[in-house]
Amino acid sequence: MEIVRYPGREKWAELLKRPHIDNSSLMETVRNVIDDVRERGDEAVRDYELKFDKADLDELLVSEEEFDEAEKSVSQELREAIMTAVHNITAFHAAQDVQLPSVETMPGVRCWQKSVPIDRVGLYVPGGTAPLFSTVLMLAVPAKIAQCPEVIMCTPPDKEGRVNPVVAYAARVAGVDKLFKIGGVQAIAAMAYGTESVPRTYKIFGPGNQFVTAAKQIVSLGQVAIDMPAGPSEVEVIADETANARFVAADMLSQAEHGADSQSILITSSPELAEQTLQEIERQVEQLERRELTEKSLSHSHIIVVRSLDDVIDLTNEYAPEHLIIQTEQPHVIADQIRNAGSVFLGHYTPESAGDYASGTNHTLPTSGYAHAYNGVNLDSFRKKMTLQEITAEGVLKIARTVETMAHAEQLTAHEAAMRLRRESIEKK
Amino acid sequence: MEIVRYPGREKWAELLKRPHIDNSSLMETVRNVIDDVRERGDEAVRDYELKFDKADLDELLVSEEEFDEAEKSVSQELREAIMTAVHNITAFHAAQDVQLPSVETMPGVRCWQKSVPIDRVGLYVPGGTAPLFSTVLMLAVPAKIAQCPEVIMCTPPDKEGRVNPVVAYAARVAGVDKLFKIGGVQAIAAMAYGTESVPRTYKIFGPGNQFVTAAKQIVSLGQVAIDMPAGPSEVEVIADETANARFVAADMLSQAEHGADSQSILITSSPELAEQTLQEIERQVEQLERRELTEKSLSHSHIIVVRSLDDVIDLTNEYAPEHLIIQTEQPHVIADQIRNAGSVFLGHYTPESAGDYASGTNHTLPTSGYAHAYNGVNLDSFRKKMTLQEITAEGVLKIARTVETMAHAEQLTAHEAAMRLRRESIEKK
Repeated sequence: MEIVRYPGREKWAELLKRPHIDNSSLMETVRNVIDDVRERGDEAVRDYELKFDKADLDELLVSEEEFDEAEKSVSQELREAIMTAVHNITAFHAAQDVQLPSVETMPGVRCWQKSVPIDRVGLYVPGGTAPLFSTVLMLAVPAKIAQCPEVIMCTPPDKEGRVNPVVAYAARVAGVDKLFKIGGVQAIAAMAYGTESVPRTYKIFGPGNQFVTAAKQIVSLGQVAIDMPAGPSEVEVIADETANARFVAADMLSQAEHGADSQSILITSSPELAEQTLQEIERQVEQLERRELTEKSLSHSHIIVVRSLDDVIDLTNEYAPEHLIIQTEQPHVIADQIRNAGSVFLGHYTPESAGDYASGTNHTLPTSGYAHAYNGVNLDSFRKKMTLQEITAEGVLKIARTVETMAHAEQLTAHEAAMRLRRESIEKK
Repeated sequence: MEIVRYPGREKWAELLKRPHIDNSSLMETVRNVIDDVRERGDEAVRDYELKFDKADLDELLVSEEEFDEAEKSVSQELREAIMTAVHNITAFHAAQDVQLPSVETMPGVRCWQKSVPIDRVGLYVPGGTAPLFSTVLMLAVPAKIAQCPEVIMCTPPDKEGRVNPVVAYAARVAGVDKLFKIGGVQAIAAMAYGTESVPRTYKIFGPGNQFVTAAKQIVSLGQVAIDMPAGPSEVEVIADETANARFVAADMLSQAEHGADSQSILITSSPELAEQTLQEIERQVEQLERRELTEKSLSHSHIIVVRSLDDVIDLTNEYAPEHLIIQTEQPHVIADQIRNAGSVFLGHYTPESAGDYASGTNHTLPTSGYAHAYNGVNLDSFRKKMTLQEITAEGVLKIARTVETMAHAEQLTAHEAAMRLRRESIEKK
């Protein structure tokens, strides 16, 4: 990692470039697995589990006994931490259940919205060396608050055919209805099209590697919705001379340890802080368990020194970071001008890891600049809003001419007739 | 069209099948046009306009003089109708700007959401024999209420290089910032990647033919968001013996006249109404301008007679219609049980055409069963919600153990350190 001092605006695009992920070469492989699962159902799923996860499975569904077993293996301390996280995530997402408007747009013409949960949702939680049970909470807790009637989850098993016990415990606590021992592309395909064991879902959520991401993209071209396109995780820190270089370094490293393609960017007005942070990063990285991977990720991270607050704001809105931590004396002054970011952390005492786990906000956020147009997962991600309307006889008389005139101008005479017939029947009375 | 009487549940799936649209064969053609526009910009756009719209264009942007000209050609009556529609659409969408929650999830841990408009949005309005200026209102009015800083629109020109005057007038009234004379795939590509004339946008909205739909799908796999996947339009009418067969028939026909692949379905408990509606349809279709096309669409439409209210509800929730009109004595009893529909019209005096044009609700709605997971365009379609959080020293002491315990269990030690360093610095004070 290096310090870039006062780059001209013409150099920003290059500086803010994300590590490029091209998954076009996987598409065919992924499509074949999807088609196979779609055709052969559970049998195909079992074949791929044996092939990719080395797990020879009879039963794909995690049983009550397995849940009981898993629960016992989770420490009291971790269970309490999970309960606190569930409490906070619940508090924040439940508050998003706001009253929707009902409007009489004209006398006798009433329009309103109604939020309805999605009938069946599918959650994917990756496996690997450190399974992210926090993701279980971030997806399942809001799904239950939204009152989705059925919440399905898939996560890959180990070679012995067991899912990670903390993942299973978190799934039970969060109210997941069915947990399946299925990973990767086969999990996405099973939830998209259904198999003998896995019910077909209408929206699929959750992170994953390039294969899982490609699978989600492919099924989303068909009948299934997905939470959002996913790319490598990233953080931007904005800091001034009041910032603590140790905190800034720790925040950048906690992003970098996610994966070799993660990105951490520091934007600061203070050349001193830039230097100190670089030294702190070099010092702290030595103590990390995932040191090697973290160093790879740092190789495409930057510390950028800028001259003005305007530069800070413009750079940030152009980059549109997934996570933005503002460690300045007056963080609100900056936050008020940020238009593009997934989740914003204000002040010296608000690390991203608080939001990653337990403050209550969701950690499923738009990466890769998608924050320009997408938001992260929230309560509404698990619902859709129907519109409804009711028109009285009075309303028909008020609105009919407008509708008939417009329909006629669009040469849609049946549309015109549908309104006219009603108007005439009322006028005759 | 035929009447299907009391079909068994095992026959529903076949009955509710939508006309199949397979656009996979167009994908390569569409991709080539997109790549060409991406590479050659305006020059490529001009070439395709000449090829597909037979328009030889110097300037792609509609000028103020052209807007003035267009406005003059729109009748006073139509202008007033458009103003009424704008008023109602504004009233309904502005009311969706609800207060977002701010929650103290733990003492010292405050989380909130903030709605931010998308910086630049692109609207597409198809051309053809009857240009849908109502779509201009349905997209541009909410975009302006959301305060999107820049609203771009594309619509194809005629052979003389002119856009439809009512479309231009509607764009001006609704506050579109830039209107371009570009149609089809080249319009979607230009708005997705930008050209010398057309600014790059972050989200693209609007209907279109199979080529436009394919183009939207392709660019959505890259950096651009789209409103929703689009398929042929459809309506379901639920009616009982209190319904007026003339109204029911008119509603079904107004859907059918949209295009040969549109679908109209009537579900009724009354065999008499079924018969009467069929006769009315045959009578009314003869008076329509788009008779031929409407008859094609009727060939894959159905009248289904069912025995019970449960059948009505289950059939509807399975079909998940874009539009649902409930013409029964107590429409609210049914509406309360509907979980999957785009827009619902209650009672004998609420035709779909009211919502298509002027009642205030949006007419950009999920087709093809997407109402299972998607809603139609609303105010939030033009914004995204950032989450923000701020933690005090007290909050750090409250939440730190939870975060550290969870991060440690996920083997993310840098995440743990980011919280621990802050906690320790406060504890030392």
